[in-house]
Amino acid sequence: MSDFWRSPLDPERVVNTRVTHWQAGEQEQREEYLTVEEPLEIRLGGRNLAIIMRTPGHDEELAAGFLLTEGIIENADDLLAVRTASDSDGLPLPNVVEVIVSEQQMREIGESAFTRHFAVSASCGLCGRDSIDAVLCNSAPVEANDLRIEAERLYDLPARLRAAQAVFTHTGGLHAAGLFDERGELVLLREDVGRHNAVDKLIGHGLLHRTLPYARSLLLVSGRTSFEIIQKALLARIPCIAAISAPSSLAVELAEESGITLIGFLRARTMNVYTHAERIVPAPHARADG
Amino acid sequence: MSDFWRSPLDPERVVNTRVTHWQAGEQEQREEYLTVEEPLEIRLGGRNLAIIMRTPGHDEELAAGFLLTEGIIENADDLLAVRTASDSDGLPLPNVVEVIVSEQQMREIGESAFTRHFAVSASCGLCGRDSIDAVLCNSAPVEANDLRIEAERLYDLPARLRAAQAVFTHTGGLHAAGLFDERGELVLLREDVGRHNAVDKLIGHGLLHRTLPYARSLLLVSGRTSFEIIQKALLARIPCIAAISAPSSLAVELAEESGITLIGFLRARTMNVYTHAERIVPAPHARADG
Repeated sequence: MSDFWRSPLDPERVVNTRVTHWQAGEQEQREEYLTVEEPLEIRLGGRNLAIIMRTPGHDEELAAGFLLTEGIIENADDLLAVRTASDSDGLPLPNVVEVIVSEQQMREIGESAFTRHFAVSASCGLCGRDSIDAVLCNSAPVEANDLRIEAERLYDLPARLRAAQAVFTHTGGLHAAGLFDERGELVLLREDVGRHNAVDKLIGHGLLHRTLPYARSLLLVSGRTSFEIIQKALLARIPCIAAISAPSSLAVELAEESGITLIGFLRARTMNVYTHAERIVPAPHARADG
Repeated sequence: MSDFWRSPLDPERVVNTRVTHWQAGEQEQREEYLTVEEPLEIRLGGRNLAIIMRTPGHDEELAAGFLLTEGIIENADDLLAVRTASDSDGLPLPNVVEVIVSEQQMREIGESAFTRHFAVSASCGLCGRDSIDAVLCNSAPVEANDLRIEAERLYDLPARLRAAQAVFTHTGGLHAAGLFDERGELVLLREDVGRHNAVDKLIGHGLLHRTLPYARSLLLVSGRTSFEIIQKALLARIPCIAAISAPSSLAVELAEESGITLIGFLRARTMNVYTHAERIVPAPHARADG
């Protein structure tokens, strides 16, 4: 049954397959789209660092973003090369990305990157507070205190994201993350079976193209917001995050302390602003000055 | 802004907070629910094994399920104890679960459990095939060749899951996983901010109560199905998985080779059966015999 063929829609990331479609008591054979999920191996200095299940495409971005958001590198200068690996005959290995850093940095990274790493838990036991402290210990809160975004512009974002992902919506199997400028224009869109991957790709793009920090940008995610999504956005210095669905308690706490405006349930011209609501303004900001 | 108070709905897992709710150009202050997300530390033999972001509740199940689905233990006999850890004064550490295995087994587990573990990638480069082979190398396909499930019973499952999760739907922030028997009766429901956690809790329950394998059960998940969800279900020997949303390509491939019936887009009396469609039958099975 699982015979796949490349979809003309997007041959790298969509395959077609045959399914038994049921409607009430009737069944028929039908062709359906599937989002491709494949493992990506990230090698650092020739060693296996991680294997991530992802949708192929923008793999160098994913590797770079992963290294930044996992705290293994700190900025673009740390990267000597990020490229598809090759086998001994020089042929590309499509699911392996190789990251090269300087020898000195490799020594600084040491073994810690290759083992599971943990927040140090206090003797009083672990709590959400420890997780927040661990993040804020490495990252100052975002600034962008003067940034103002009109509510009306926010309402448009989900439709803009969906319009840009027209091909992929066929499969119904993808998380989308969009980066918008402060006027609400879509700057970059990434999609992946993994929601963290979509955000890592956006951030990795900024590393590889030296457009980080995203200090005046807005991140829109198609699903829910968790602690980890806020942590990633903070490392990219993104001051405003909006989501179609709900945030978790720890996402709200970290956003509050990180100076990030966090919006949830952005749909049908309504939304909840959970933190730093002062950045969201009713009328066009220009009018207030004029 | 991020002042929380315990919700009377479910004080352990839901907090209330104040948000700025916008509708078109109007804003008002409002009280909203949030799903609690907190870190859980799993200790194995006194050492830190993993920190997982999760919704509190059923933490022993989560720890036991995690150890099984990560391949660190193989069955319930491997567990001497799974319990909330205590500090030096004997007071409980609510976000730390301690797992004890025998000394001999601790030696067998060795250091591998405490480092990131990887599929070995072939010299030809990693591919989805390798991931499937790695899983099937440790687990035989499920059997249950005689299991038949009526399409009409499947259509009822999403509503049964939603009815059982009535409290949590207030927050909109949770993934649900439900275990049903072959007649479509809900046996167990678990919810979590992490979709893998919800499945690990279901499986951990079976380990702790010695009701594994789930060889005649059906798993329903509220979201999408990825490779990892199928892998977990296979370790619990679940022969049928249904999801409200789409599967990935690798989920379909692994389900096919694992002998698992995989259903997607189960909504409004329609569904797609991606693999092992022979288990889904139109009329009540009893009638065929009578």
